[in-house]
Amino acid sequence: MKLYDYKQAPNPRRVRIFMAEKGIEIETVQVDLTKLEQHSDAFKKINPLGEVPTLQLDDGFCINQTNAICRYLEEIYPDNPLYGRTPQERAQVESQNHLIQINGIVAGGEAFRNSNPNFKNRALSGSHDYAQIPELAERGLLRIDNLFADLDKHFARQQFLVGDYFSVADITAFCTLGLTRWVKKAIPSECIHLQRWFDQVSSRPSSKA
Amino acid sequence: MKLYDYKQAPNPRRVRIFMAEKGIEIETVQVDLTKLEQHSDAFKKINPLGEVPTLQLDDGFCINQTNAICRYLEEIYPDNPLYGRTPQERAQVESQNHLIQINGIVAGGEAFRNSNPNFKNRALSGSHDYAQIPELAERGLLRIDNLFADLDKHFARQQFLVGDYFSVADITAFCTLGLTRWVKKAIPSECIHLQRWFDQVSSRPSSKA
Repeated sequence: MKLYDYKQAPNPRRVRIFMAEKGIEIETVQVDLTKLEQHSDAFKKINPLGEVPTLQLDDGFCINQTNAICRYLEEIYPDNPLYGRTPQERAQVESQNHLIQINGIVAGGEAFRNSNPNFKNRALSGSHDYAQIPELAERGLLRIDNLFADLDKHFARQQFLVGDYFSVADITAFCTLGLTRWVKKAIPSECIHLQRWFDQVSSRPSSKA
Repeated sequence: MKLYDYKQAPNPRRVRIFMAEKGIEIETVQVDLTKLEQHSDAFKKINPLGEVPTLQLDDGFCINQTNAICRYLEEIYPDNPLYGRTPQERAQVESQNHLIQINGIVAGGEAFRNSNPNFKNRALSGSHDYAQIPELAERGLLRIDNLFADLDKHFARQQFLVGDYFSVADITAFCTLGLTRWVKKAIPSECIHLQRWFDQVSSRPSSKA
């Protein structure tokens, strides 16, 4: 297998941390997004949407989208499950992971891509061009503030996003906090529970992946 | 089990069609979104985010978010799987379902909620208020046009979103087309492959659920 990756981007990082948690090693190929290599003819044959991460299996079959890749890896490497251990826990992980994807990864992406001059006319990833909307960048920042407050309340009651079980949802949240730094949003000093969780996740060896 | 539902909304409809495809019957409770019943104190005890669908299990445990509910039902009623039958197929279903969620359900929601006067200051679902952004409504309409064209190309080559296998991704896409009608976007006459797929899915008994 081969993972098409870009070290600086949040979504490939989600896959790398997932792999590290499970002890999986896969060859990675860097696709330099700053040089728009993801839109090259060569890479479009691997992923027509021009997005990383993409996982290429040994038979050439390609899997796109972060959760599709991670769920595939979860199936073929079932030890140390990160999508839950029981039907109810798996439902909670899916729910939390979806919420943090929408309110974290998507919201952070709105703030970043609608304000950074390098993303003019590329306000959304994928194969279509969309103009930046400055008000959407502003709303993204507001959503990040709300996310910090919501997560702080959550972590006042629970160790991780799903009780005391470290899951893929925590990985998504952790990579969201990497993304929010791109728009100069750090954990507010009053969010002590969110900071406690962040420090705890940061101390896991996988956080360096 | 009890499904908190609203007959007119796209996300609860995804769960109802999923249940119908699997032959599952669950008691439904209507939560009238036009009367903002989802934000009542009584419903907030069931789902603090004030969203439907929500599945309440017999022990009181509540599952929020469409895919969390459908994946839970897939686990406890494994016959007639709708999330795929092999690891590779499951990866494709997850990928296609995610893409249609983002480019269909989210994009359609942007077009609708940012233009309809009833959603003033409620441009996103969930517990936070966000002002409408008219440019985002416009972008939503453009995204729907692009989605129609992309799906048409896809269905020129494949019967369903994942080959000849009817999956939860087709249900998400089908309910997206219900949502786009709210912003007066119907399948363009030139999209004959998309129309063929739509007619085929419409002819399934589950489409009436």
